[in-house]
Parts: sequence; C-alpha cells; structure tokens
Amino acid sequence: MRRVAVIGVGVTKFGLHDRTSAELFADAAGDALSDAGISPRAVQALYYGNVVGSETEHQLHTGPQAASVLGIPSVPTTRFETACASSHAAFRHAVMEIAAGVSDVILVGGAERVLNVSTAESTEYFAYASDAVWEQPLGLTFPGVFALIARAHMEKYGTTEAQMAAVAVKNHRHGALNPKAQFQKQITIDQVLRSAYVADPLKLFDCCPFSDGGAAVVLASEEVARRHRKPVWVLASAAASDWMLLGDKRDLSRVPATERAAAAAYRQAGLGPTDVDVVELHDCFTIAEIVATEGLGLFEPGAGGRAAEKGLTSLGGEVPVNPSGGLKAKGHPIGATGAAQIAEIVTQLRGEAGPRQVDGARTGLTHTLGGNTATVLVSLFGRD
Amino acid sequence: MRRVAVIGVGVTKFGLHDRTSAELFADAAGDALSDAGISPRAVQALYYGNVVGSETEHQLHTGPQAASVLGIPSVPTTRFETACASSHAAFRHAVMEIAAGVSDVILVGGAERVLNVSTAESTEYFAYASDAVWEQPLGLTFPGVFALIARAHMEKYGTTEAQMAAVAVKNHRHGALNPKAQFQKQITIDQVLRSAYVADPLKLFDCCPFSDGGAAVVLASEEVARRHRKPVWVLASAAASDWMLLGDKRDLSRVPATERAAAAAYRQAGLGPTDVDVVELHDCFTIAEIVATEGLGLFEPGAGGRAAEKGLTSLGGEVPVNPSGGLKAKGHPIGATGAAQIAEIVTQLRGEAGPRQVDGARTGLTHTLGGNTATVLVSLFGRD
Repeated sequence: MRRVAVIGVGVTKFGLHDRTSAELFADAAGDALSDAGISPRAVQALYYGNVVGSETEHQLHTGPQAASVLGIPSVPTTRFETACASSHAAFRHAVMEIAAGVSDVILVGGAERVLNVSTAESTEYFAYASDAVWEQPLGLTFPGVFALIARAHMEKYGTTEAQMAAVAVKNHRHGALNPKAQFQKQITIDQVLRSAYVADPLKLFDCCPFSDGGAAVVLASEEVARRHRKPVWVLASAAASDWMLLGDKRDLSRVPATERAAAAAYRQAGLGPTDVDVVELHDCFTIAEIVATEGLGLFEPGAGGRAAEKGLTSLGGEVPVNPSGGLKAKGHPIGATGAAQIAEIVTQLRGEAGPRQVDGARTGLTHTLGGNTATVLVSLFGRD
Repeated sequence: MRRVAVIGVGVTKFGLHDRTSAELFADAAGDALSDAGISPRAVQALYYGNVVGSETEHQLHTGPQAASVLGIPSVPTTRFETACASSHAAFRHAVMEIAAGVSDVILVGGAERVLNVSTAESTEYFAYASDAVWEQPLGLTFPGVFALIARAHMEKYGTTEAQMAAVAVKNHRHGALNPKAQFQKQITIDQVLRSAYVADPLKLFDCCPFSDGGAAVVLASEEVARRHRKPVWVLASAAASDWMLLGDKRDLSRVPATERAAAAAYRQAGLGPTDVDVVELHDCFTIAEIVATEGLGLFEPGAGGRAAEKGLTSLGGEVPVNPSGGLKAKGHPIGATGAAQIAEIVTQLRGEAGPRQVDGARTGLTHTLGGNTATVLVSLFGRD
C-alpha cells in the first residue's frame, strides 16, 4: 500500500454561527487547501462527515452540497455517518482510497450545525445514535449513558468526581490557548464540582457543549506530499465497533472498541503507547477522557483519573492530552470533530501550535468515539 | 490493485414490512452469507447504506446496529449516505478496501423503512436530499424534479408520455417474473396514460413506489473468491457528482454525473456500452430510465424514449434493462437499492435468474442515482 500524508488543515472557530454547515465546511476547506498550497481543482474526491443535518437543517446528501459550495461539483463525494466519529471515519476511508492508488489528493472533513435548534431538540437528535427500540424509549440520552459509565468506573476503581473535574479544568486551560476554541476561559475544580448535576455524577462542567463548526484536512499520496513543506504522515488508521446496546456490554468501565482500534493502529504503525507524544481524544464528557486514556494504553485500567489529577495529561506533563482544549473547551460540532482532532495533531507535529505547542512532538494520536461507545476510530501520525 | 469479486447476494422481498431496517438488513445479510458459504465471523468489515432512518426510525449510527443484529459487533462498520445511491457508494468504498489489501471479506448492504410513516412525511424526508435553503422552500419534491427533467427531454427530443409509459409497462412485465418484487402485476400503456398526474407530465404509474426492504452482497479478494462456486468479478466501480442545485445545471435533459461515472467505469474495465449484456439502472421515474440509458451510452442522446417503445430494453431485446422489475416494479427501499441492483446483476451473470434470465449474459452494469442527479455510481461486473 502507498504511504499517505496530510498536507493541509483548516478549522473554523467552534461555537455559534449563523451559517449552514455547508458554508462552515467551505470556510474550513478553503483554509485547508490554501495551507496545502493547492487549488480546489486538484481535489479528486471529497469525503464528508455530517451527523444530524437531516434534523437540524433538513439536509441529507450533504456530500455533493459541500462539493458544490466549494465549486468542485464533479468530484466523487460521499457522506459518512458513524455518529460523533463521522469525519474520522471519512478520513480512514480516504486513506484507503489513496493507499489503493485510486486517487492522489482527497479533501476530507465535516461540519455540523446544531445551535439553530433548542438544547432539548439537539439532545433528542444526538440520542438517535443509540438504539431507537430498546434505549431511546427509556429516556436514555448521552449524559445518561456517560453517567452510567462514570458510576461503573467509580465503583470499580474508586475514581472521584474531583478527578473528573481535573480533566475539565485541564482542557479549559488548554482551550484558553486556542483562538478557535468555543471556550477560552479557565475554570477551577471548585466551579466544576459546584456546577449543576446534568446526570449524576456528571455536572454541567463535565459535559462538552453543543457547537457549530467545520474542519477539513487535505490528504495526499507520497509523491504529491513530498512537494509539500511539512507533510505529516499517516502511520495508521483503524476502526472497531462494539455492541450497539449498553445492556449488551459486559463492563461499562471499559470501552472495548477503543482497545481494539488502538491495538490495530499500534500494530499497523509498529508503535506502542509509550511512543505517543501528543493525543487528541474524545472527551465528550470528562469520564470519557479518563476511560479513553486507559483504553489507548496510556495508563493502566483504573489509573486514568489519578493521572489526570496529577497533571500527567496536561501540557508539560508526561503525555499531553487534548492540547486544543478537546471537545470540552474547543467544542464539539459532531460531524467536524474527527477532522478537527487530526488538524490539531498535524499542527502539533509541524511545531506550529504556538502557546499550546507540545515540545518536540514527533508522534501523535487521534481517537474519536461514536454513540454508546459502539464506534471508535484511532489514527497515528508522524513527521519526517 | 487486487481483484475483487462478489461471492454472495441476498435480498428481502420489497414492500410493506413490520420490521426495523436493521432486522430487514439482517435477513438479507443472512441470505448473502449463506449464499457465499461463509460464517458471519469471516466478515472483516461492514459497509452499510441507509438514508432516512433518522427521520422514519429515529435511528442514526446504523452501522454498529446492523453489525450487532448480525452478531458481529466488533468489526469496523460505517454508514454511507449519498441519498438513493447510498449502498452503491458503500459498495464502491468496500471494493477499494479489498483492492488496497486491508481486508479479504466485506459485507456490504443497506436497508430502509419508510412505510411506517405517511406518504406526505416520506415525500418530505426524501426531499431533504435536495437543497434546504434554495430548493425545499419552493416546494420542490422529487416527482417535481423529474417532471422538470421530463419536460426538458420532451421539449428537446420529442420524447412522448407514451414512450415513458412503455418503460413502466416493461418494468412491470419484468417485475411479474421476480418473486421479490413489490409489484408482480403487469400493466398496460393505457393504464399508465390514464393514471392520475402526480407532477405533470409524470403520472402515478411513471413513479416508483415507497418501499421497505434490505439487500446485501458479500465481497471477497481474489484468493477467497477462487474458492467460491461462481464468483462474479467487479470490473469497475466509479462515482461522479454534479451541481447540487437544479438551477445550476445547464441542460436538464441530460445527467452529466451519469456520463462521467459511466466514462470512468468503462475506462477502468476497458469496455464500452456495446459490451454490456444486462443493466440494472435507476428508474425512480420512467423518464429517469430513458435519460440513464442515454447517459450510459446504450443509446444516443434523445433516442432512449424510442428505444423503450421499440422494446430494445425488454427481456429478449438488444440490451435488457431492469430485468428485476427495476425500482418501478421491484420497489425502492432507498438505502437498499444499490446493493439490490448488484444482487440482480450477480444473479444474472451466474445464470440463476430463472424466468427473467438474460440468455448468455457475461457482462453486467449497475447504475444508481442520488438526489437531484447530483450523485451517480456506475459499476461493471463480469463472470469467468
């Protein structure tokens, strides 16, 4: 298989926008193409992630719409939907198209618009990623899903609400260094602990926000990438799934799909967790970050909460996690999230992350989770 | 790139079902796996097409759900959505994964459930595949889109309502030979011409029905496929797009995305239109079949209506089109349609289509269209 590199990245500011998701994507894609130094006409395919567009914008078939808005209407284009992991899934499939020798330059990205509807509506639409027959009728929405995961983790490992709060405080500290982040304001452990319960034990500041935004990355074959100033190589991209229903999972304190996808990605790259210098992972709730750091092998099962509390995952720590601010502070426009995480890791490996730069980062990892932990994608990146 | 074959196919009966789309897919997938003679555990990835599940079933994230229902929850799974072409898009991407050497056995398919909601609701949801800002507010739904296409074709080429009716009559005649078809009843030109106008010049019998159903195919690398009794080889699989908005298209009497995708597919396979023995194409409306036969190069632009009237596209004619009955008579469960077309062509090339068999068929083509003609996929198949 051919090597694949990322040669351009672009991300909108995340937060409230009075624009369609197609327009948000066009902004991010324009930045990614200009970062790559190529014309839109060099793009041979468009891989696009979008999740609840049919609900919030009454818009399906978002692939050709995104291509039209970019003025490249004739390229093959596909919409990918794996809940919150959609644009990471798009990325993985695009890597395969280049690896297979079908194309040399692919634009990958995603966008989402949800702040044009009420929080009650978006909460309901997001819940469509859980099972409609067995789970939604119970009133199970995502804060509830992750509250159950948090309870299981607390019960099994003694993880505390203060440890979860440490994740929120750290990601807000990082987000304050990111001009594209939705929240650029530091918070304290006390503020997190005193915020209102959303789904016990998760409080408001344990939860990422609803966000609008777009993100894009330009992928290229080795031959094209060699002409770029700073190609970042895709060392691995792997996906795994798990039972759709929470009730079918044996142990809610772990995410088997993360463990499987990580094992596959490490195997593809010939690397292990200790080789990773910087991580962008799926912290839709603070507990999700703790469980992900364990599933990725950065810490032993049960040690993620203490690691966060000790600052091991902070900028300057042993393995900085979510230097962008993560979903928690940077925001979570769900169709854009996977591509935005990749954009951050590429920026880090280029050494261009400014005040949030992880010194000397050579190997990076992105991790994105969809639904009730039923979809996970993990990719690894390296620089020359 | 490695060669890829289809080694198993399965399709549910199309029509009204009191089952979820995941259950319908499980039925089709079970049949496809048993046709392939492999266990579900041999499947390394699941590629899944579904379109309006979030509206009609409140279900997103349908990939892992389909995998769970099949009892193979850990395989990587992705939902693809390119409007009515969704499972054909899933198929094309799966071909690339095997060609790239990532996997050897992939299950591809799709399902849709729409008959649990009213016709007004499904008409609205289908319209989400057109542009939400510029087209939907005009009240433009798909019968209207294809009525405009029909008017343009009639104006430019003198195509008649009787010629369109000939497509409906032919596809119902074929559908009467297909035990899985939603309509297994012949109709007459007169019945079509006297049916009520839905969107002038299209009448009720010019339109395909709303349908529930599922379809699946098993793809394999050459090494695996060689162990199968009758592998059908994927000679090409290509996609193209076009402007999202009808108003941006120069000539509604043609579908540039069909012409581009067909040209790419013929080039990949080293074949031309005269090499094709049997075709399953996207006849969501009778005019869509006429325009598609022209775009695929089976007839000159403008000659499709006369060809249908002369019986050139009937079983026993020059190039049989839609021996399954097509979307018109077999039905159109949108997420399943692309995979169902492939299943029919595979059945034809194996010589196992019974009373609707195209004698001596060696090369087959499938064509699937999404939205306002903004997405088209074309694949070519051959037997040993």
